[in-house]
Amino acid sequence: MNIILLSGGSGKRLWPLSNDIRSKQFIKIFKTPQGEYESMVQRVYRQLLRTDKDARVTIATSRTQVSSIRNQLGEAVGISVEPCRRDTFPAIALATAYLHDVQGVSAEEPVVVCPVDPAVEQDYFEALAKLGQLAAEGDANLVLMGIEPTYPSEKYGYIIPGSRDAVSGVKAFKEKPDAETAKEYISRGALWNGGVFAYKLKYVLDKAHELIDFTDYHDLFDRYETLTRISLDYAVVEKEEHIKVMRFNGQWKDLGTWNTLTEAMDDACVGNAIQNETCRNVHVINELDLPVLCMGLKDIVVSASPEGILVSDKEQSSYIKPYVDEIERPVMFAEKSWGSFRVMDIEDGSMTIKVTLNAGHMMNYHSHKLRDEVWTIISGTGRTIVDGMEQPVKPGDVVTMQAGCRHTIIADTELKVMEVQLGEEISVHDKQKFRLES
Amino acid sequence: MNIILLSGGSGKRLWPLSNDIRSKQFIKIFKTPQGEYESMVQRVYRQLLRTDKDARVTIATSRTQVSSIRNQLGEAVGISVEPCRRDTFPAIALATAYLHDVQGVSAEEPVVVCPVDPAVEQDYFEALAKLGQLAAEGDANLVLMGIEPTYPSEKYGYIIPGSRDAVSGVKAFKEKPDAETAKEYISRGALWNGGVFAYKLKYVLDKAHELIDFTDYHDLFDRYETLTRISLDYAVVEKEEHIKVMRFNGQWKDLGTWNTLTEAMDDACVGNAIQNETCRNVHVINELDLPVLCMGLKDIVVSASPEGILVSDKEQSSYIKPYVDEIERPVMFAEKSWGSFRVMDIEDGSMTIKVTLNAGHMMNYHSHKLRDEVWTIISGTGRTIVDGMEQPVKPGDVVTMQAGCRHTIIADTELKVMEVQLGEEISVHDKQKFRLES
Repeated sequence: MNIILLSGGSGKRLWPLSNDIRSKQFIKIFKTPQGEYESMVQRVYRQLLRTDKDARVTIATSRTQVSSIRNQLGEAVGISVEPCRRDTFPAIALATAYLHDVQGVSAEEPVVVCPVDPAVEQDYFEALAKLGQLAAEGDANLVLMGIEPTYPSEKYGYIIPGSRDAVSGVKAFKEKPDAETAKEYISRGALWNGGVFAYKLKYVLDKAHELIDFTDYHDLFDRYETLTRISLDYAVVEKEEHIKVMRFNGQWKDLGTWNTLTEAMDDACVGNAIQNETCRNVHVINELDLPVLCMGLKDIVVSASPEGILVSDKEQSSYIKPYVDEIERPVMFAEKSWGSFRVMDIEDGSMTIKVTLNAGHMMNYHSHKLRDEVWTIISGTGRTIVDGMEQPVKPGDVVTMQAGCRHTIIADTELKVMEVQLGEEISVHDKQKFRLES
Repeated sequence: MNIILLSGGSGKRLWPLSNDIRSKQFIKIFKTPQGEYESMVQRVYRQLLRTDKDARVTIATSRTQVSSIRNQLGEAVGISVEPCRRDTFPAIALATAYLHDVQGVSAEEPVVVCPVDPAVEQDYFEALAKLGQLAAEGDANLVLMGIEPTYPSEKYGYIIPGSRDAVSGVKAFKEKPDAETAKEYISRGALWNGGVFAYKLKYVLDKAHELIDFTDYHDLFDRYETLTRISLDYAVVEKEEHIKVMRFNGQWKDLGTWNTLTEAMDDACVGNAIQNETCRNVHVINELDLPVLCMGLKDIVVSASPEGILVSDKEQSSYIKPYVDEIERPVMFAEKSWGSFRVMDIEDGSMTIKVTLNAGHMMNYHSHKLRDEVWTIISGTGRTIVDGMEQPVKPGDVVTMQAGCRHTIIADTELKVMEVQLGEEISVHDKQKFRLES
């Protein structure tokens, strides 16, 4: 099975765990059968491989997510990077071209596309395989998954199927309705459109060539910024006559708000937290090194990260966005391809950052114009290169770097460093990268 | 007026703002008329001096509070340090001897004793002055304040007065009753015993000499550990025949739990916090450098400090103690005579601490057996002395100290230092102090 997982952008609706550079799909709040915590993207990947161990998985995403995907899924997964946002048709065209031109997938093979974030069970992945099979059989150019609605949601588009059969034609597509209209649709047998569908690779590739002037994947990638924003639904789905819908009546939960996300959590507390026995329907996700104590709470989510602390009634939590927009704050924590960093302290003229490098990884070789830096190694061993000079480092070693000096650090084991930045203007943009002569 | 403020021990009922070394009376959550935040002890001191600018104020407290008192009240206030806890009679005897032998107060002068922590208005301090006057007049050996009860509290002892007059004899003392009994007492005209009273200095001094074998304040201080624990009520008050009670019907609120403390707060939020418009009766006290966002909460207190985060229903918050007892955690923040420190990070084999020294102050000259240390100056200027060598320091300067090396730092301006401690065993007890040769 060829599968494209659409890994959407960052969002503020799960603040403080999601931010401008970190998305909900990377938060580790679910449990594996072995009892370890895993993220949405890890869970969907594990479930996929369990259904089809040879599945070829490609994640269509933005550049900012590449480090987190590599950290959480390793090197085996394919990544189709969208250079910028251009809606779903360009994104799916790019990922399809990537499958064909980079991964060497035949134009005749079926491709299944689905979002990375709903909470689903094993039956969903079996349905995906079936969807791919239907596309391969070629009775239709596009085969959609139609999810049996559990309530008259206003969040989804609806598909009116031609019959009550497991697989049928499509009578009509409906935009996100209000609750009244949704009820009426459902009484007419309508299904949710969850953005899950399958096609033969060449079908989308041909559509892409019809609508966009490009030669191959690399050419499409290079001109991506010039493309018009257009959704797949508008560009393709709603115009296609040879289209079918396959019913799915298993679990399919959108985890876009704290309210729905906490419903899908396996534990009431993730991280250092205590709830007393008078708490009811309370969830705590605590990424800080501080204990959280909850007493006498009902229907509340508490979420704490280096970005901030949310304490919200669960239903209210869906109205979070405008409040988070008001909170201006530099990014305090980030996962990188080489490890992670966390801002520990900000003073006028200084910033202290704890840097963790994974074993075998290194920072870019770089310099800063407007700040000096001091590294104190707090654990692990490795090497620093400062203005071309390599030195081994161990806990307690100190490296001081004047503004302008080129530097990097290489982790031989996992390496933790307390970095103090000093200067009148400390900015993430003050960074020049250099190639390291070997 | 000579006044002894009893500044009680640390408590866990206001966790995470109070801990083993920090007490509720030092938390800055009230507002001065100028709009600045002040603590309980600062407020009571300010209110006292407003009533009587020449008041001689002595704080009876434990050693652990001396730094906080000096930081918050300055050098003018007297401090009678109890070397250990020995209940109220030894504490008041020691403070009374301190007034006589150290401050030179005449044995004929009245002394007023009151706890540091209730929330009161100006009329209370006028009542204290009146209480002292009554003691000076000498009609009774002890004059108690009897507080008009506002509800049948189980938290206080009761005084049954001889009459309904403003000042009267005492018919009986009653231990803390249950609510039913409290109601009955109140129907008989009983008053709360808030631990507020006045006497002529020599009265308590004579009682002390009767019950304890000592010569003067210094002798009493030295043998303090050998004294028997006994309350003033038991040792003196309940046996005294020449005793009066003066009614007080102004505001007098005990601030011992989050529920009562938040009632007395001037602002709903102290620190970086947002409440959305659906919050009702919510208080946030946030000492962290992180924003707190509250949505849709009712009757809740949120309190965040380097010790942890509390989210509690206000009524439930009075049951906090056993939960906090379960939280084992090194002290993460402390005020010292020279400034303050905050633990930023703990790893196996290292601990990172942000140290703030007040201008003109210095650490003790000291060494550690089992750890190395690295200082990176992040702001301010001063001098370090390392193994006798003095060096000026400024932001960006780094000082490395091997185990065994003697060191201190002197702040010429306010000085902030990121200190990384490195060693297999990092403990507050690994510290030898030395006299600095000048």
